[in-house]
Amino acid sequence: MSGRQSIEESVIARAVQLAGSPSARAPIGAGDDMALVSVGTAKVLFAVDQVVEGIHFRAGTPLDLVARKAVARNVSDIAAMGGLPSACVASATLPSDMSAADARTLVDAVAHWAQSFDCPLVGGDTAVHTVASAPLTLSVTVLASVRSDGIIARRSGACAGDTLLLGGAVGGSFGADGLGRHLHIEPRVSQAQQLIDQLGGSVHAMIDISDGLGRDAARIAHASGLRTGRSLQARLRGDQIPLRSGVTLRQGLCDGEDHELLAAIEAGAPIPAGWTAIGSIVTPQHGDTRGCVVDVAGGEQDASDLGWTHG
Amino acid sequence: MSGRQSIEESVIARAVQLAGSPSARAPIGAGDDMALVSVGTAKVLFAVDQVVEGIHFRAGTPLDLVARKAVARNVSDIAAMGGLPSACVASATLPSDMSAADARTLVDAVAHWAQSFDCPLVGGDTAVHTVASAPLTLSVTVLASVRSDGIIARRSGACAGDTLLLGGAVGGSFGADGLGRHLHIEPRVSQAQQLIDQLGGSVHAMIDISDGLGRDAARIAHASGLRTGRSLQARLRGDQIPLRSGVTLRQGLCDGEDHELLAAIEAGAPIPAGWTAIGSIVTPQHGDTRGCVVDVAGGEQDASDLGWTHG
Repeated sequence: MSGRQSIEESVIARAVQLAGSPSARAPIGAGDDMALVSVGTAKVLFAVDQVVEGIHFRAGTPLDLVARKAVARNVSDIAAMGGLPSACVASATLPSDMSAADARTLVDAVAHWAQSFDCPLVGGDTAVHTVASAPLTLSVTVLASVRSDGIIARRSGACAGDTLLLGGAVGGSFGADGLGRHLHIEPRVSQAQQLIDQLGGSVHAMIDISDGLGRDAARIAHASGLRTGRSLQARLRGDQIPLRSGVTLRQGLCDGEDHELLAAIEAGAPIPAGWTAIGSIVTPQHGDTRGCVVDVAGGEQDASDLGWTHG
Repeated sequence: MSGRQSIEESVIARAVQLAGSPSARAPIGAGDDMALVSVGTAKVLFAVDQVVEGIHFRAGTPLDLVARKAVARNVSDIAAMGGLPSACVASATLPSDMSAADARTLVDAVAHWAQSFDCPLVGGDTAVHTVASAPLTLSVTVLASVRSDGIIARRSGACAGDTLLLGGAVGGSFGADGLGRHLHIEPRVSQAQQLIDQLGGSVHAMIDISDGLGRDAARIAHASGLRTGRSLQARLRGDQIPLRSGVTLRQGLCDGEDHELLAAIEAGAPIPAGWTAIGSIVTPQHGDTRGCVVDVAGGEQDASDLGWTHG
């Protein structure tokens, strides 16, 4: 783990400490994929996520794909909460040498992808760096509505015994050239809605895999353990995890930015088409603090910290 | 006007072109201080604004004041729409040499000021630049509710004959040292609410002065002219404009980031305490395309383009 990463994690931890507790204004605060906010008499889902050149994409990546990634990773958060996209706003800080034509390409692409993911762009802010070589930053904030039945899929809702379902294949999202599937995220809004339509409140928890299956499974276990006051662990069956073509199990556990959905559903609930049961939520042995363990041929492996770290 | 500024303006113009038209999803789109978005059956106000080192504040500015400015200029937009703050999220890109202690100071300050302005921080995202000397960027997105009587103060609601009211004194927001009042914005949420409480639908338009009184008055005239299909002009009386101590009229018209409110109210409506009538909305003579004209001793002055441009 680099020094940069640890600063990011400490900032996030501090923000969760300051803004994570439920309140009348924010029944769900910082720490889940989105916050749930009271706005007048309504409740809305609300989250921000940014992409930065040199961290989330390489210099030279086509601006259309930069815009797509910035919008799609946010809409993927909406999917993970079981929300329905409403609208987005974007703020961009542009390199000082970006041409007016490129700036226009970027805003057109943000608007295009936002519309394409049913989360139209409704506002924004742009600044141009004064420092030469300062990288492109694109921050997108999304708003979403809660389903009419009120079901919200939090990462903290899992219980011991729940089945873990994966909504797609994982691994190999980064090409050696810096391109690859991480630039072509398909937010799984419809898939999430269909799961909740079919299983209702038996969908206990959900997350979109952004930092690696192992790490994100551990997050569900950890958040749900905090909620229940009992330690929980995600236990995956290595031979059941759907992998992208040419990908090893380790890559499937580690590679970030898959943006497939991982759900915890009530034990015994039917498994809808398109989902694969890959393990379960268990009560670990006393003293076992591992958040995610994978059963593999010949033993088990701690996957809690195998995730990919940005930068 | 610098090349940078023209890129920013062309991006904004393009975004308004793409996302400014009213729709079922966004009854108010890009181009006002905030968008109005349909989220399920509710309607909420939604906007983003960022501060960037080297543009909105100088390197070395205390992080507490950077955070305050980032939050306050957004809450000022809520005030200008007649909205009630609900919550905010923030994304930050940190210089690669920022210490963990400074990063924590920044997140603490964002949370502090957000709470202080009754718009609590509920989520965020942090990245650390990989490029040395890349500047600090802090983007804040706010959510607000509409008043229970449904009144929203748009910049486009003014009519010929309306009185223009200014909610405070203007000018001199930037000290020679880069510090000054622009870092100590007081969002005028209560003042805006009191105005609408007293005058109701007679408050036709409102804006917070971010780019100079002359330029922002011209914006009300321009947007309202587009709405009515008739050219409109803001006509200010130079001797009536409240100026900060030691500030010339020209500075009062030009200096940006006052963040006082400018409202257009129905002709003849009473002028509440704390507000000063500084002019009116008029129908200009045929062919007069100036958005804001100031009457001064010995003549008149075009103030439409006197505003301050960031960077």
